[in-house]
Amino acid sequence: MISVSDALRIISEEAKPIGKENREILLCNGLVLAEDILSKDSLPPFDKSAMDGYAVRSIDTERITEENPRGFKVRGVIKAGQWCTESINLGEAYKIMTGAPIPMEADCVIEVEKVKTEGDIVYLYNEVKKDNHVIKFGEEIQPGDIVLKKGTEIRPAEIGLFASLGYKTVEIYKPPVVGLIITGDELVDIDENIGKGKIRNSNEYAITSMIRSLGLEVISYGVVKDDKAVLKKIIEEALEKTDIVITSGGASAGDYDFVETILKEIGAEIKFDSVAIKPGKPISFAVFNGKFFFSLPGNPLSAITTFEQFIEPLCNKVLGKLDCMKEDFPIILGEDFKVRKGRVKLLYVKIVKRDDKYYAYNIGSQSSNKLTTISKANGVLIVPEEYSEMNAGQTIRGRFIFK
Amino acid sequence: MISVSDALRIISEEAKPIGKENREILLCNGLVLAEDILSKDSLPPFDKSAMDGYAVRSIDTERITEENPRGFKVRGVIKAGQWCTESINLGEAYKIMTGAPIPMEADCVIEVEKVKTEGDIVYLYNEVKKDNHVIKFGEEIQPGDIVLKKGTEIRPAEIGLFASLGYKTVEIYKPPVVGLIITGDELVDIDENIGKGKIRNSNEYAITSMIRSLGLEVISYGVVKDDKAVLKKIIEEALEKTDIVITSGGASAGDYDFVETILKEIGAEIKFDSVAIKPGKPISFAVFNGKFFFSLPGNPLSAITTFEQFIEPLCNKVLGKLDCMKEDFPIILGEDFKVRKGRVKLLYVKIVKRDDKYYAYNIGSQSSNKLTTISKANGVLIVPEEYSEMNAGQTIRGRFIFK
Repeated sequence: MISVSDALRIISEEAKPIGKENREILLCNGLVLAEDILSKDSLPPFDKSAMDGYAVRSIDTERITEENPRGFKVRGVIKAGQWCTESINLGEAYKIMTGAPIPMEADCVIEVEKVKTEGDIVYLYNEVKKDNHVIKFGEEIQPGDIVLKKGTEIRPAEIGLFASLGYKTVEIYKPPVVGLIITGDELVDIDENIGKGKIRNSNEYAITSMIRSLGLEVISYGVVKDDKAVLKKIIEEALEKTDIVITSGGASAGDYDFVETILKEIGAEIKFDSVAIKPGKPISFAVFNGKFFFSLPGNPLSAITTFEQFIEPLCNKVLGKLDCMKEDFPIILGEDFKVRKGRVKLLYVKIVKRDDKYYAYNIGSQSSNKLTTISKANGVLIVPEEYSEMNAGQTIRGRFIFK
Repeated sequence: MISVSDALRIISEEAKPIGKENREILLCNGLVLAEDILSKDSLPPFDKSAMDGYAVRSIDTERITEENPRGFKVRGVIKAGQWCTESINLGEAYKIMTGAPIPMEADCVIEVEKVKTEGDIVYLYNEVKKDNHVIKFGEEIQPGDIVLKKGTEIRPAEIGLFASLGYKTVEIYKPPVVGLIITGDELVDIDENIGKGKIRNSNEYAITSMIRSLGLEVISYGVVKDDKAVLKKIIEEALEKTDIVITSGGASAGDYDFVETILKEIGAEIKFDSVAIKPGKPISFAVFNGKFFFSLPGNPLSAITTFEQFIEPLCNKVLGKLDCMKEDFPIILGEDFKVRKGRVKLLYVKIVKRDDKYYAYNIGSQSSNKLTTISKANGVLIVPEEYSEMNAGQTIRGRFIFK
């Protein structure tokens, strides 16, 4: 049994991107750039107006004041997307729309709210400085400039930027495909009646949903009965076809649990087989031929806890993300809490924000198979192993769940 | 021009769910329950073991101590999914796996780590209390109990819970379909060269990606040239086929902007047509036949800002979510900032967390069309209108972006 921090260190050492691929930009949200993105153009490709207003020559506005306004003849209108081939003379203005190119000789824009018009004359009431409301040619980007670096996490802003730079596809770190295997003779399908000693398969649904929340594809192998030969065949198939294999159930110290034996038989390197955390102790992590393998506890609450604690950071690092760990923060206990001493405990709580501080409240029994418990919680307290009684007002670190 | 808070209040008053539908549970992550979910069963459906261990009669363990252990004859093994029809006698034990049913007459489980075995005898070294490590029949849920209430936001835990309760589908508030229309004669396709006065269409990609981040389907009508008749036809079609229509570009005070005229012609009720916010002033919001309409500024940064500030809360409320507003928090300025007085300003910054506090740093020019700016930022400061010079160490509220 190793500590949580050792387990996370081992995972972090093993996890790395599994490859690169070109992908349509709209399918890249949440993924990470595996190449530098260079500009092919100058942006903006011309001096353009940052406002709706009037383009004039700044020299022509000198000494204008509110008491001493000056009229300019409006020669026409330039809208975004048009190209003005005529230059402007002293005493003249062009009406100009946001994003439209500045006409030749003009060098500034006065916003529409600051002028008055009378027929085709526009009156200015103040001086306008050179480059006022003008975005200059190449001001944002020059050809060959690195606009986005390899390793950048892609968000909608970056997708917009790819488009503006003329990239239909970009190279990203390949998202891993996750294989999911549920074990347990006690499990029946969702639409079956619960027979004696049976419970419905819920982990397949909860874990599938968690994997998809990370933006990853799941191949689910459904429920496999506790038969070593069958399970071995499916684990081998999953390790062949997917990049990360997760089993749930079948990893406790029980006599009927074959996963660890199978891993040893196929020659997988088991990195750890239990972690000092509650719930979730019987989690194991192995690597095999560049693939990653996790065996999660069968209890739904333990499975969810260990997925968030250990698998999510691995997936994020495989995706190329730098910040791959869950972020914790201080939480003030809103009431007393009692726990048993021993392993680090993740205590499911309701976190409430008041006056920019976070407070934690009990949500009932934490027995490790209660999905109803976790459905009342929005966070966990991370309770150090030596703690047992904790009092209202005390501060403990914790984090949100499903975020 | 109205204030940001008035705009959000108006949006919140208008926004409501657009209907309900039954949906496969795996497609419900992030949606909201539109029905109460009742249990059909007792859970657990039998007294079951919470641990791998040995089931015995508690009365049979009285006065056992470390110095005075007692041996029990192990009659067999009960694994999860099995059903034990035999009862247990005094002096006997069953080995029992996590999740397996407790045999008749037995009333407690002692964990495997606390015993020693010798042949078919298991030695106990302490008393075991009644119900120790036993999860009782119906302890979690009784038939007819409301397990999850209408209005609950669905996460992987709830999806697991649906499965465990035998629900293949649940009724959720129908996610709105969003129609997206980009306007502007200056826009060329992503794979075209930038001609004189032209720029590439980036908003279609950035906004599509933001809508999809909310889990919503987008129908994109692409770029529509600034021709009133054509634009009107497409707006009418979008209002017919989708639930929320967004246009980008074409909503400034410019002479070539038809959106507002079109809205009036078709009889849409314009709720506001500009908001005191920078960037993003020319945003308008209208309702028509139970549909929602937003016209966003054409500048990419303004479009992204106003989408997050105004459209995201509306979408969340239509989805049935209670917490639909973006969450802000105090941020300490890591350096001096200068802004122009006037409207409330969203200042794009790099937020860094140190010692559980957030600090904001400059990321360069905030001119309203710079996607490169926003790509360096992970948050915004929400600068009140009267502020102009702000000093390092001062605290300003703000929020993360794309979160």
